[in-house]
Amino acid sequence: MGEHFSDRLTRAIRERGTPAMVGLDPVLESLPGGLRPRDRHVSSAVAAIEAFCRGVIDVVAPLVPAVKVNAGFFEAFYGVGLAAYYRVVAYAHTRGLLVIGDIKRGDIGSTAKLYARGHLDSPAFDDVDPASIPDAVTLAGYLGENAVRPFIDTARRLGKGLYVLVRPSDPGADEVHEFGAERRFYQHMTEFVRRWGEGPDLIGECGLSCVGAVVAPKDAASTAALRAMMPRTPFLVPGYGAQGATAESCRPCFRADGTGAVVNASRSVIYAFNDAQRVKQHGEDWQACVAAACREFAGDVAGLTRLA
Amino acid sequence: MGEHFSDRLTRAIRERGTPAMVGLDPVLESLPGGLRPRDRHVSSAVAAIEAFCRGVIDVVAPLVPAVKVNAGFFEAFYGVGLAAYYRVVAYAHTRGLLVIGDIKRGDIGSTAKLYARGHLDSPAFDDVDPASIPDAVTLAGYLGENAVRPFIDTARRLGKGLYVLVRPSDPGADEVHEFGAERRFYQHMTEFVRRWGEGPDLIGECGLSCVGAVVAPKDAASTAALRAMMPRTPFLVPGYGAQGATAESCRPCFRADGTGAVVNASRSVIYAFNDAQRVKQHGEDWQACVAAACREFAGDVAGLTRLA
Repeated sequence: MGEHFSDRLTRAIRERGTPAMVGLDPVLESLPGGLRPRDRHVSSAVAAIEAFCRGVIDVVAPLVPAVKVNAGFFEAFYGVGLAAYYRVVAYAHTRGLLVIGDIKRGDIGSTAKLYARGHLDSPAFDDVDPASIPDAVTLAGYLGENAVRPFIDTARRLGKGLYVLVRPSDPGADEVHEFGAERRFYQHMTEFVRRWGEGPDLIGECGLSCVGAVVAPKDAASTAALRAMMPRTPFLVPGYGAQGATAESCRPCFRADGTGAVVNASRSVIYAFNDAQRVKQHGEDWQACVAAACREFAGDVAGLTRLA
Repeated sequence: MGEHFSDRLTRAIRERGTPAMVGLDPVLESLPGGLRPRDRHVSSAVAAIEAFCRGVIDVVAPLVPAVKVNAGFFEAFYGVGLAAYYRVVAYAHTRGLLVIGDIKRGDIGSTAKLYARGHLDSPAFDDVDPASIPDAVTLAGYLGENAVRPFIDTARRLGKGLYVLVRPSDPGADEVHEFGAERRFYQHMTEFVRRWGEGPDLIGECGLSCVGAVVAPKDAASTAALRAMMPRTPFLVPGYGAQGATAESCRPCFRADGTGAVVNASRSVIYAFNDAQRVKQHGEDWQACVAAACREFAGDVAGLTRLA
């Protein structure tokens, strides 16, 4: 069994001095000009987004403890795209980063077992690099415990983790998540996630479970209430930057000791070279723009972890 | 624009005389002995499940109007597995079948756009076969309208379809879906799915929308209530066979004119050769076992469509 996921992440956050995570959402149309493909072959497109992701990783690896790789942006390129997703995960590992696979899978138990095999478990094949599998994944828990159980079992066995959707960053999700009268649907999901993460084999030395929650910050009071309802649940906090969340709005996601959350920024960091202000400062060097944006982001959220 | 998805499916059901759909859930450990791989290379494993799926398709193509290909069972084999998923979709198309991609994706709008590109839209690349993309996909709508909107737009434009999870077949999902007092969570989702499927450009000549629902049959009264709440919504009905649903329990999923639903069976058909009774009848010919099970299934549910 590997070291507990939350212990690994907590230590990495302490070492880098920031709970900042960079999200890799590669979009062909938004790549730096020099990286765009010259033909309409899917392999050229995938080579382009892969080169971009490697370039971003090179720049952010010394600055942040983890990256989040969004499978959807790779699946836009079919099987060859998903193959690149795994190579990007492996590359991030070689640069010393923890890697969250943002897959949001959620299916009934018999199918969930297969998703867990491909996305979190040790490979059963001689020719698959274990480093190409993420340290943790995001999941949808809307089909109940059976949909996440195979991932929990794998996480326990291998020292990996999972983050179940509790409060998504898209305001359009509210029409579903605010359902209910006295008790809201997202609070109902909160209770499941808390319960799924309990048990002595699931809690790390840092006091956090390997079963986490995706919690976008909204008003401070409701975020603080979620933190209180899930005291041992690590949070993955989306929405920073392009989606409008600030360091201050993320604060209630953290525990009193400064642990318990990692804050993700995607577009505002990885597409910093499309920002005219940055270009004025750094010229055509897209990686310098990304580095500057990442440094600002990492510094902005650093104060949220007041670790001993 | 292609012909409306529900018109195509309704016609195919009429031509085959049954609303039966076979689900392809290939599991390495359950394959016929002769197809199992001889080494521990992922490419051998994928070749084995692909050969199995082609063999099943060959047998069921004359008997049923559609197959459902479950992406999770291919993703267990990483990028090379997902590449085989698309080849299996293409192969089913060459055999005249409609193909539902069972992907259950559900993410926020900015990511949903990318999932729609890879899983339902026309390929933007010269070297990707349009026939490798399914006619419809299953989706999770739990992140709200933005999570499904890119798929609806694609379906309208190309004559394709989508089925949003409303009532999953796994009883473990009830702890989520039965949430609520007077009004249950699944009824809340029902209302969304009905609304998303409205609009003149979304309804086919058969009177059904291209926005469907996944509805597992439970008690007759609640299933009939769902049918009444979504009068123009095509249903994908899981749970037949190995999961316990019968033709009779599926009946309330159909409209009064016998249209509006397709019933899926996976394990009970594709693994029929693991059933001792069948082997006694057909010997070691695994495809004969699958054909017999498919014929029984197709005949059993044929009576549910009383088409003019």
